Amino acid sequence: MMVITMNSHATLGILGGMGPAAGIDLCRKIVDQHPAHRDQDHIPFILYSVPQIPDRTEALLRDGASPLDGMLDGVHALEQSGVGCIAIACNTAHAWLDALRHRTRLPVLDVVEAVAGELAQCVAPGALIGLMATEGTHHANVYRPRLEALGYRFVQVAEPLAHQALVNEGIRLTKAGENRRGGEALAMAMETLLAAGAQRVILGCTEIPVALVTCETPLGRFGLDASAALARACIAWSLAHETPTGKSRQ
Amino acid sequence: MMVITMNSHATLGILGGMGPAAGIDLCRKIVDQHPAHRDQDHIPFILYSVPQIPDRTEALLRDGASPLDGMLDGVHALEQSGVGCIAIACNTAHAWLDALRHRTRLPVLDVVEAVAGELAQCVAPGALIGLMATEGTHHANVYRPRLEALGYRFVQVAEPLAHQALVNEGIRLTKAGENRRGGEALAMAMETLLAAGAQRVILGCTEIPVALVTCETPLGRFGLDASAALARACIAWSLAHETPTGKSRQ
Repeated sequence: MMVITMNSHATLGILGGMGPAAGIDLCRKIVDQHPAHRDQDHIPFILYSVPQIPDRTEALLRDGASPLDGMLDGVHALEQSGVGCIAIACNTAHAWLDALRHRTRLPVLDVVEAVAGELAQCVAPGALIGLMATEGTHHANVYRPRLEALGYRFVQVAEPLAHQALVNEGIRLTKAGENRRGGEALAMAMETLLAAGAQRVILGCTEIPVALVTCETPLGRFGLDASAALARACIAWSLAHETPTGKSRQ
Repeated sequence: MMVITMNSHATLGILGGMGPAAGIDLCRKIVDQHPAHRDQDHIPFILYSVPQIPDRTEALLRDGASPLDGMLDGVHALEQSGVGCIAIACNTAHAWLDALRHRTRLPVLDVVEAVAGELAQCVAPGALIGLMATEGTHHANVYRPRLEALGYRFVQVAEPLAHQALVNEGIRLTKAGENRRGGEALAMAMETLLAAGAQRVILGCTEIPVALVTCETPLGRFGLDASAALARACIAWSLAHETPTGKSRQ
């Protein structure tokens, strides 16, 4: 039987659960940033939030179990559900972006590309920027070489180890549900980067905006939220890829 | 190859998108209400949020297109993704609960059962209660006969049509992203039910708690949030159903 569906936008697959609050935050940003007057005009998506995936930073830094198989389980479940592309709601997991792209026929969006596109609208190449991220994201060079290739320079803080320890603690607290305490640690870390001269600070871990929103920091306008940038890339992809308006159902 | 997974809890399937913010709100409540110290301890779930499903109230009241096929598409996509049960993030859609249960081999949780269980912990049978819900939920008798059978009585407001119009407007505004204005209308409607003698008011539409949280109403403690009750039922189901710790992967 041919059934006319009302689905004019293509369905996104969100690989979440890393952590769960961060995946939900990305979905919320997709809904909030695509204003619609009724349910049916919103962007369709499927969120795979199975957080039993080995820790990404442990794998990158301390030889922990690889998260790749767990991520592939998610990608394959999303493929079978009929999504048209994949977005990964975890910056650190982008260390495996190429490996994932080789194992799926679907396009996989890239948070770094989304951030680079929005950074160019805020500051010119040559600008000093800061990056708040997990140790895994720093270690795997998810952001730095690509943004340096575009001409951006990364600020140096006086005590990098203490600074990263504060970021780690903020992320850990947020993953444990203590968003407010996490947000306080992260706001302090952001302040250090701005004091060191950063013109923009990339919030390059999906937990960071979840935590920062709980404390009203006046620094918010200097942050570039990687999740929000990825959400906008998701919306643009969905709107650019129409789903067939008729499909077979037995 | 036999792979040991870390997934000790069974995976939930959330049928969302009705509306999208409400589905996300249910997921957030599942995460928030199951405290965990690290990502891997959280409840696994998959959220199907394809909002191109015909409006439930239009179908029930004004002979609009049935949402059943759209909901079945979601249920089947979730089945194929390997979830162990289904929760429907829409009270009105529970009018089709029996129809869905007949068309899937998976258990489908029931928001009314979850609400009845929690109501019994707040007030004794015989208590006067209020119900804030869509016209479709009222018309399809999703809650009333079952709660009356348990001995609860429903309050009468002086002007039921004007009261329902206020609830409708609050839900409509929230679906259009105007949560704050929606929350103001819904807080007024809740006040009317309490003034009429309700000891507890069931927030029986998934949009209502999303909106009410934006306005700091002192009435909050008299509300019974159906989404939060369903989230707790979801957590209980997942914890009671372990997933096999080994599975085959080619």
